[in-house]
Amino acid sequence: MEVQERAFRLQAAGRDIIHMEIGQPDFGAPPQVVETAHQALGSQRLGYTSALGLPELREAISRFYADRHGVRVPAERIAVTTGSSGAFLLALGSLLDPGDELLLPDPSYPCNRHIARAFEARTVALPVDHRTGYQPTPEQVRRAWTSQTRGLLLASPSNPAGTTIADRELAAMVDTVRSLGGFILVDEIYQGLTYGPAPHSALHLGDDVIVTNSFSKYFGMTGWRLGWVVAPTELMREMEKLAQNLYVSPPSLSQYAALAAFRPDTLALLDERRDEFRRRRDLLVPALRDIGFSVPLVPQGAFYVYAGCEQFSPDSHALAFDLLEQAGVALTPGMDFGSHQASAHLRFAYTCSMDRIEEALNRLDRRLKSRL
Amino acid sequence: MEVQERAFRLQAAGRDIIHMEIGQPDFGAPPQVVETAHQALGSQRLGYTSALGLPELREAISRFYADRHGVRVPAERIAVTTGSSGAFLLALGSLLDPGDELLLPDPSYPCNRHIARAFEARTVALPVDHRTGYQPTPEQVRRAWTSQTRGLLLASPSNPAGTTIADRELAAMVDTVRSLGGFILVDEIYQGLTYGPAPHSALHLGDDVIVTNSFSKYFGMTGWRLGWVVAPTELMREMEKLAQNLYVSPPSLSQYAALAAFRPDTLALLDERRDEFRRRRDLLVPALRDIGFSVPLVPQGAFYVYAGCEQFSPDSHALAFDLLEQAGVALTPGMDFGSHQASAHLRFAYTCSMDRIEEALNRLDRRLKSRL
Repeated sequence: MEVQERAFRLQAAGRDIIHMEIGQPDFGAPPQVVETAHQALGSQRLGYTSALGLPELREAISRFYADRHGVRVPAERIAVTTGSSGAFLLALGSLLDPGDELLLPDPSYPCNRHIARAFEARTVALPVDHRTGYQPTPEQVRRAWTSQTRGLLLASPSNPAGTTIADRELAAMVDTVRSLGGFILVDEIYQGLTYGPAPHSALHLGDDVIVTNSFSKYFGMTGWRLGWVVAPTELMREMEKLAQNLYVSPPSLSQYAALAAFRPDTLALLDERRDEFRRRRDLLVPALRDIGFSVPLVPQGAFYVYAGCEQFSPDSHALAFDLLEQAGVALTPGMDFGSHQASAHLRFAYTCSMDRIEEALNRLDRRLKSRL
Repeated sequence: MEVQERAFRLQAAGRDIIHMEIGQPDFGAPPQVVETAHQALGSQRLGYTSALGLPELREAISRFYADRHGVRVPAERIAVTTGSSGAFLLALGSLLDPGDELLLPDPSYPCNRHIARAFEARTVALPVDHRTGYQPTPEQVRRAWTSQTRGLLLASPSNPAGTTIADRELAAMVDTVRSLGGFILVDEIYQGLTYGPAPHSALHLGDDVIVTNSFSKYFGMTGWRLGWVVAPTELMREMEKLAQNLYVSPPSLSQYAALAAFRPDTLALLDERRDEFRRRRDLLVPALRDIGFSVPLVPQGAFYVYAGCEQFSPDSHALAFDLLEQAGVALTPGMDFGSHQASAHLRFAYTCSMDRIEEALNRLDRRLKSRL
């Protein structure tokens, strides 16, 4: 966040900054969604909706799971939320009590950790690196599990590494957590942005698996603040109460507009955008390696590369500021995602055009050579 | 909430239900706001905004305080939030630690109590009734204050009673809380809907007073999920971090649209709507008294009447269900707002037209007479 603030300040002062620190797609909402929003503005009063969201949107998400993922998830188990942040508020708020422990990988997306702590739970970091695809192993989970541990939070694809967890490994992890009597929550916010074979949702593995997702990334609707959570039936009543108390209901216009997100023509457009992200990845990863960054694994999803930068500096935070000030390229230092090997890593977000990525690579190359 | 669920179920089954249980204005957003939303949809990418909201909206709120309330509040002390729920999340999240005590009146709006509890604070109820305008007194606060108490939460106008706290009494309360070393948070969500002389914001009383407000009630933008909080400068950084972690940023389109909420023509329209609410109040209060409800105080604001119903039943919850099933009028039982004299009260929301209010009064009169 510090880098981003400084980047916008430099930009406001007239500097040309290439933003590779922002976890936000550059395409905006699909035109079908925008058009549906116009219609809803003209025809709906936009009052509160049900706390768990419009029934027809919950149904649309249910059909999406059936059509795209081949998994049956009744609408009653789906809560539409205020962003995926809202999904985590409901899931962690209904699952965690003060003093409970939640396991999660380090590095990982920091807000989820903070939401768990807002409910006075303790988060326990499982250090991960490229050797396990930046995903924890069942063995790690078993070792870290205590009488206070309530569950495990994973993300596939992960942020910051963009790595996915293989079906078989996820199944083993679900079995492990089940045998320990805990819950598993899989953050699938980047699932639509997976570049290999069609991904499976963790929901395949049983009705006890909890999954969060969002309209922000694959669907390009960041500022619309809309996400969802799929949970076991017995959690829904508690999550409904939490939603009523914490935010009343998700934004109404966003919900009406999101009904257009699942139309075949919208999905076709979104898949084209996903392919553009893949082309950016295919440009970025080899070029970063050429410059001298260490990228041991090609990320399979999201729009991030988590690159080792020890070759250039022992302190990725200082390096990020140097590259921002001297090369005009904004990157996120590893410390934003945890502490494990954080000072040896930078996260690159390929949420800008191919041209800008190429320009960024040239600038980085020049600056890093001049530092040697 | 139970009554509301049942009311919508009956309606879906074909019954004509008069909704006087809903805390939502029936006018919808002003056309100026809707038009501005159309424009923003066509011209903005609607990505995340700053966590504390669009700078130009924070400036607009600051000017609104200067123009309408004659109080200087710099934009830096204003955070735009996801509904007033978001305002409470930021304020209470940054002010309360586990085990801290928060004083609040009983009856009062239940969600704020639940948000305080989500942060593992203890809420301590101050029983209030018509004799003090449903507002606590400095003496009550002093008696309830312990070493664990961190602050006091008030609402003016209050929900469910619609009563305001007089300037002099609020000043005395602020002094009391200051002398005890605590914070005071004044919920001004219904302030725009005050029917007497122009209300003063509690912000007049010092830069240490915290105020929450919303675009949902006076501005008619419930489903847009937009509110704000004004806080001392030293809290803003902590609230910014909380906003980033708990919901990233408030809905973007709602923020752009809300820029039109402060235009003179919009405010003129909103003041007309406020006058319509006053006419409804002036119809409802005497009619309820005629039927036999006890309404010792004429509410000065909001769109609620908190009416005593002991004449008809010792159990307002059972009575609410009886009146829903037998008369098709949905009301909120006192237990939704606390426990003090809760079974002796029903809340009437005059968020439906004069015609419907008259019809409701006829039905209630018939049903209650038949029960005698």
